Amino acid sequence: MVNFQGNETVRMEAFSDGVFAIDITLLTFQLKAPSLRAATSSHSLAMALFDQWPNYIAYFVSFTTIFIIWLNHHRMYNVIQQSDSRFMFYNGLLLLLVSIVPFTTSLLADYINTPAHQLSSVLYMLLFAGISWTLLIMWNYATDNYRLLKRPAADVRIQTVRTSHLISTVTYVLAAGLSLLVPFLSILVGLAMVVYLSRLKYHREKVI
Amino acid sequence: MVNFQGNETVRMEAFSDGVFAIDITLLTFQLKAPSLRAATSSHSLAMALFDQWPNYIAYFVSFTTIFIIWLNHHRMYNVIQQSDSRFMFYNGLLLLLVSIVPFTTSLLADYINTPAHQLSSVLYMLLFAGISWTLLIMWNYATDNYRLLKRPAADVRIQTVRTSHLISTVTYVLAAGLSLLVPFLSILVGLAMVVYLSRLKYHREKVI
Amino acid sequence: MVNFQGNETVRMEAFSDGVFAIDITLLTFQLKAPSLRAATSSHSLAMALFDQWPNYIAYFVSFTTIFIIWLNHHRMYNVIQQSDSRFMFYNGLLLLLVSIVPFTTSLLADYINTPAHQLSSVLYMLLFAGISWTLLIMWNYATDNYRLLKRPAADVRIQTVRTSHLISTVTYVLAAGLSLLVPFLSILVGLAMVVYLSRLKYHREKVI
Amino acid sequence: MVNFQGNETVRMEAFSDGVFAIDITLLTFQLKAPSLRAATSSHSLAMALFDQWPNYIAYFVSFTTIFIIWLNHHRMYNVIQQSDSRFMFYNGLLLLLVSIVPFTTSLLADYINTPAHQLSSVLYMLLFAGISWTLLIMWNYATDNYRLLKRPAADVRIQTVRTSHLISTVTYVLAAGLSLLVPFLSILVGLAMVVYLSRLKYHREKVI
Repeated sequence: MVNFQGNETVRMEAFSDGVFAIDITLLTFQLKAPSLRAATSSHSLAMALFDQWPNYIAYFVSFTTIFIIWLNHHRMYNVIQQSDSRFMFYNGLLLLLVSIVPFTTSLLADYINTPAHQLSSVLYMLLFAGISWTLLIMWNYATDNYRLLKRPAADVRIQTVRTSHLISTVTYVLAAGLSLLVPFLSILVGLAMVVYLSRLKYHREKVI
Repeated sequence: MVNFQGNETVRMEAFSDGVFAIDITLLTFQLKAPSLRAATSSHSLAMALFDQWPNYIAYFVSFTTIFIIWLNHHRMYNVIQQSDSRFMFYNGLLLLLVSIVPFTTSLLADYINTPAHQLSSVLYMLLFAGISWTLLIMWNYATDNYRLLKRPAADVRIQTVRTSHLISTVTYVLAAGLSLLVPFLSILVGLAMVVYLSRLKYHREKVI
Repeated sequence: MVNFQGNETVRMEAFSDGVFAIDITLLTFQLKAPSLRAATSSHSLAMALFDQWPNYIAYFVSFTTIFIIWLNHHRMYNVIQQSDSRFMFYNGLLLLLVSIVPFTTSLLADYINTPAHQLSSVLYMLLFAGISWTLLIMWNYATDNYRLLKRPAADVRIQTVRTSHLISTVTYVLAAGLSLLVPFLSILVGLAMVVYLSRLKYHREKVI
Repeated sequence: MVNFQGNETVRMEAFSDGVFAIDITLLTFQLKAPSLRAATSSHSLAMALFDQWPNYIAYFVSFTTIFIIWLNHHRMYNVIQQSDSRFMFYNGLLLLLVSIVPFTTSLLADYINTPAHQLSSVLYMLLFAGISWTLLIMWNYATDNYRLLKRPAADVRIQTVRTSHLISTVTYVLAAGLSLLVPFLSILVGLAMVVYLSRLKYHREKVI
């Protein structure tokens, strides 16, 4: 295990921010102007746009989820001082998984309204479970023996954050299983987890 | 409401800049080489390119509008010292709306020259209204009781900026309504608002 | 004319760098795997790839040109201390024009091998002429009365840079005209200008 | 040869990071929701997704390879103090080659399962060889007479890094040749090189 220069986390954060920003923006390709052969009226265009409602929902859930994951990634790095090879590997895995979100989003949007909605929902939820699990692994590795934390680390809510990422991972896995029975459950769970993960605090005290 | 680290606005600004830069560049997909089965001459290519004029206009209006919104976002952050959870939520909403601009731009370009032009114009204007309204909400929240402002805040033109964002929001909404009657009005109003918003000053005095 | 905060050029540079980086990477869409119905052998794939040679040439010229324009944009900002509204407007115009390069590149690649090659070459060259001209305008505005320059500005090669950008603008315009008569001239001139612009020095002395 | 400002490597690194981040994210276009005319069931969707396995493999190898190249680019710049025109030229060449990775990845994914797999594998490996070779050239130029290194440079593992980049270049070239005989060898070599290059250390001692 090699330690890198002191500015290592700065560069890794900047690169990660770039990948997050691009992935969240690539979701836009989900939204496409319908190609009407005969755009006879605003009414027919409205109907065509309305038929795309799964795309809008999938876009909204994925956009907010990636935003919240970025927020948690960012808060995590706020209490981390340094990085090492293994932590960089975990970070690369996180970026790999986040980069797949536009693909599963596209799958969900295309198939949630078809008989094949179950598989698309399961894959959508399992990817989010994998991302949550990676965040959990990163946090466990960084906080184990205060390995990568800034000193003093007494005010870091190590255990609370562990529990929260464990809860979110389990919830996503359960939602994947249940979406076999209840269609659209993945959408609701996805939105609920956005709210849950947005409230996660990494510091016991207010940070100035 | 949690306060984040002091460098919170720096990271949020960098992430926002990334999303703005990518969205403004994705508009390029609006511009496509026409696929001629028989490119018999430069003349036939010129005709095919000329037929794409709605794309060029929509590209120009959207590019300049996103640029001016970025400029205002940037000027706003220049007088803001810190952030909190709610302000980050508003900022995420702004990025979500800006990311939809390439979609409404594509709608406008595809349908402004068809009988369905009314709906495409209305949606185009309403999205810009939503963006202006979000900027207004952000500014109101940040300046209420000088909540997030840098001290001394005496030279910040709080009321003028509020009024301007209110005016631009109302103008976009009115233009959405009127574009039902007057085609192409949305284009003109879009260009006028670019000029108007580019002149908005957030400081009473010159800033060195 | 308002002066902005001292860090204004830093933010403008970062946003511009983002747009440059995205535009230079979007050129990649020029390169597409050929879709063979019957990929009977590596030989037939090689033939299909060979037929795409205009795409490779157009990709190479556009990539290197955007890189060199970025380099000149960067060197220019190295000797500039501050910005104002009008300079930001010019910078926005530059980004608008650079963002159109993938479009004209696509036009050139699609039509240089057809009877319509003249128009595609003319547009390709004229866009580069417009970019050079914008760089010239920016430089003239920044250096007029040493308006935006860092002090001491004695070692800035104001006149040489003016002349060079004027020469490159005129060369691109002439090449646009001549490419009506001589096909492929635009490619050669584009490559020559990359070499020419890469050698442009903004400082009289070595900069440490 | 001109030396640039002291912050030259900072800007060049930031621009390069942007291009790396965009290229690694553009690989996502490799992953596309299959378009089923009749999505009769989750089973038929699963079959369609399974048929895309070459895309997943190619995506994984390219993503990890670009990530490792970025890591090496980053570690190299960690021991470099300054830049000059020729080093910038090499860096531009590196970015040009990395930007082509999505193209060869797309070729590999489309043809590895067809009779034309040999050519797609050869091109895929040769591009990686070219990238490794460019990294070797950059390192040789920067370390020759300690030209661009930070002082003191005694702890930089100049010779080890040279040997490693030479080994990786030769390995990619050999794999290109052998993939004419052994299909899928390129995939395995690609993964092995990711592991090999991820372990490359540029410093003799731990860096704090």
